Amino acid sequence: MNAFVYGVGSSNFGKQPEIRVEDLAARAILEALSAAEVDTVEAVYVGTVFGPPGLSQRVLQRVGITRVPVLTIENTCASSTTAFHEAVTAVDAGRWDRALALGLEKMTSVGVGPIEPESSDPEARSGMALPAIYAMSASRYIACFGLTETQLASVSVKNHRQALANPRAQYRAKLSVEDVLSSRMIADPLTLYQCCAISDGAAAAVIGKDRGDRTDVRVRASALRSGGLWDYRSAHVWGFEVTRDTAQTAFEQAALAPQDVDVFEVHDAFTIAEIVATEALGLAPEGRGGELVDSGHTAMGGRQPVNPSGGLLSRGHPVGATGLAQVAEIVWQLSGAAADRQVDGARIGLVETLGGGTAGIDGNGCVVTVLGG
Amino acid sequence: MNAFVYGVGSSNFGKQPEIRVEDLAARAILEALSAAEVDTVEAVYVGTVFGPPGLSQRVLQRVGITRVPVLTIENTCASSTTAFHEAVTAVDAGRWDRALALGLEKMTSVGVGPIEPESSDPEARSGMALPAIYAMSASRYIACFGLTETQLASVSVKNHRQALANPRAQYRAKLSVEDVLSSRMIADPLTLYQCCAISDGAAAAVIGKDRGDRTDVRVRASALRSGGLWDYRSAHVWGFEVTRDTAQTAFEQAALAPQDVDVFEVHDAFTIAEIVATEALGLAPEGRGGELVDSGHTAMGGRQPVNPSGGLLSRGHPVGATGLAQVAEIVWQLSGAAADRQVDGARIGLVETLGGGTAGIDGNGCVVTVLGG
Repeated sequence: MNAFVYGVGSSNFGKQPEIRVEDLAARAILEALSAAEVDTVEAVYVGTVFGPPGLSQRVLQRVGITRVPVLTIENTCASSTTAFHEAVTAVDAGRWDRALALGLEKMTSVGVGPIEPESSDPEARSGMALPAIYAMSASRYIACFGLTETQLASVSVKNHRQALANPRAQYRAKLSVEDVLSSRMIADPLTLYQCCAISDGAAAAVIGKDRGDRTDVRVRASALRSGGLWDYRSAHVWGFEVTRDTAQTAFEQAALAPQDVDVFEVHDAFTIAEIVATEALGLAPEGRGGELVDSGHTAMGGRQPVNPSGGLLSRGHPVGATGLAQVAEIVWQLSGAAADRQVDGARIGLVETLGGGTAGIDGNGCVVTVLGG
Repeated sequence: MNAFVYGVGSSNFGKQPEIRVEDLAARAILEALSAAEVDTVEAVYVGTVFGPPGLSQRVLQRVGITRVPVLTIENTCASSTTAFHEAVTAVDAGRWDRALALGLEKMTSVGVGPIEPESSDPEARSGMALPAIYAMSASRYIACFGLTETQLASVSVKNHRQALANPRAQYRAKLSVEDVLSSRMIADPLTLYQCCAISDGAAAAVIGKDRGDRTDVRVRASALRSGGLWDYRSAHVWGFEVTRDTAQTAFEQAALAPQDVDVFEVHDAFTIAEIVATEALGLAPEGRGGELVDSGHTAMGGRQPVNPSGGLLSRGHPVGATGLAQVAEIVWQLSGAAADRQVDGARIGLVETLGGGTAGIDGNGCVVTVLGG
């Protein structure tokens, strides 16, 4: 694609109700513009899930961006990766020379309570909030493939350990498998430390066409899909198929294979999600994702580190901001700017974000982006 | 542009809490697909303001549309015109052969109460909800240009009369100027019948590249902008500048002038808004929009009818559905399918939607689309 990331930025992530959403966004935007060495953009793509109407223009006003087209996009947990996808697609098509992608969410102060969809949503009526959907998937996976509780918990141990080197992460903690397994049960078999947390944060990227600057990070591929109807009798875990299919499109576009990728940020909303994502992305055969954690393959220092930032489990999950935080981490990694969590020699990186879970759809939205090289 | 509207559809508009949002959407989508004579689309662009996360995929599942990219866009009152704009822009760029644009809003049953933004919104803190913003604009306009209360009320009389021929409109009533002026005061000088109503509804359009079908309606131009900071000391009424600038871009792209347009659907959220919109679109000099109503220029049978559907004032304003309802009306008009409200010989039509009103922005979003010819 003729689309490059000129610069990225983010706020700290965490429960910070005292900081206004405009200020969280401003930190991310100003850092991204500064890193990009640009002052203006021609359009803005914003991802947010719970933001009130008109929020985007209000936060952009805070940094003096007015009069340009603003597209505010909701795609559940993949909202800001979808905004990024739309921005890179538009730049690649020649619609803009330069666009800003922004993700933001203020979850601690905008009254996000238990999700209460309209009664026409059959899963919601049956109590199937996302932790329950992932828990059922985990149980099914354990039954089918013999994953152990220790393997599941090890994902959380790895990601929290990696977050120790990420000063912007919500939770930085040295946890043992025992700590994870003995934390409060949320939805069997998922304990508290196996679930990502509500958070506040913002992240941004400036995207433009090739300007001949070797520090810009090329967008090699970006793919977006929604899922199909999920067959409850399927052997595949919820979200596997849409992730696999989206990744396949992205790898074809990038002319790369999974083993060519040096570093990943994947959507570990729950421990089981990272295992399924790494399989769907082609790092392991179906049913053997647990071995990637056992062997250290996906840990820092391993062959293909996954979630060097700490992932959603440790960075926190301000839903509309997560996708661009993943993009920012990969751009920092490919620019050699990841400080104490740098993956040595990282040339190609991949972001995977999976959104959704209502009414039997196998993922409302999935975005896979391949960067670098 | 190489983008054509193949077909449009809509539900009835009105307070209909007993009808599920999936069913409202299904009526609009199935009518549009049927009119377009197509079975499948490659992507879907959805406009909604208050829809819960993941709503788009849920309503699309109802009509069997899964696995394709779904972009859900919020741009306050211009949400579904923005979705339409993104769809036609993408088709024109060759991204898709065929896309669906959908607007939907269920306002009676999803708990849309008084807008309570975060306290960082200075206008909201001062009680400046949209009726107040428009009322201040109307007062200013009356003071500057000598508009009369009768002229203001006549917009409502005209649009309600026109809605008598629109079976899908929320309010069809023969009103006198006296009826309008004696209705309950909402925000001085705007009385109840000068304000659009909360509503439930959905509208849809199938857009594709040129397929050589002479019944398809060409998209001649589509422009999207957001406003700049509004100077409270400006002589211009709120929203005037962004509408004028967006229209100018659209007219340039269409290589047409305002007098070339045969029929308009404009964003008459309040009576003053139609007067300002017609001026911003170039039908009258600034300050003289009231004369367009006095003379019958913008009434059915006049030289350039405005809001033959009844407009927001009469059709109702399910915010995320309004823009595509405007598009549907213009497409029906240009296809000779508008039955008892047909504008004779209509060849060129224009849609204008203005969204927003927070924190001093002169319109969060404005879309102007020129169709036909």
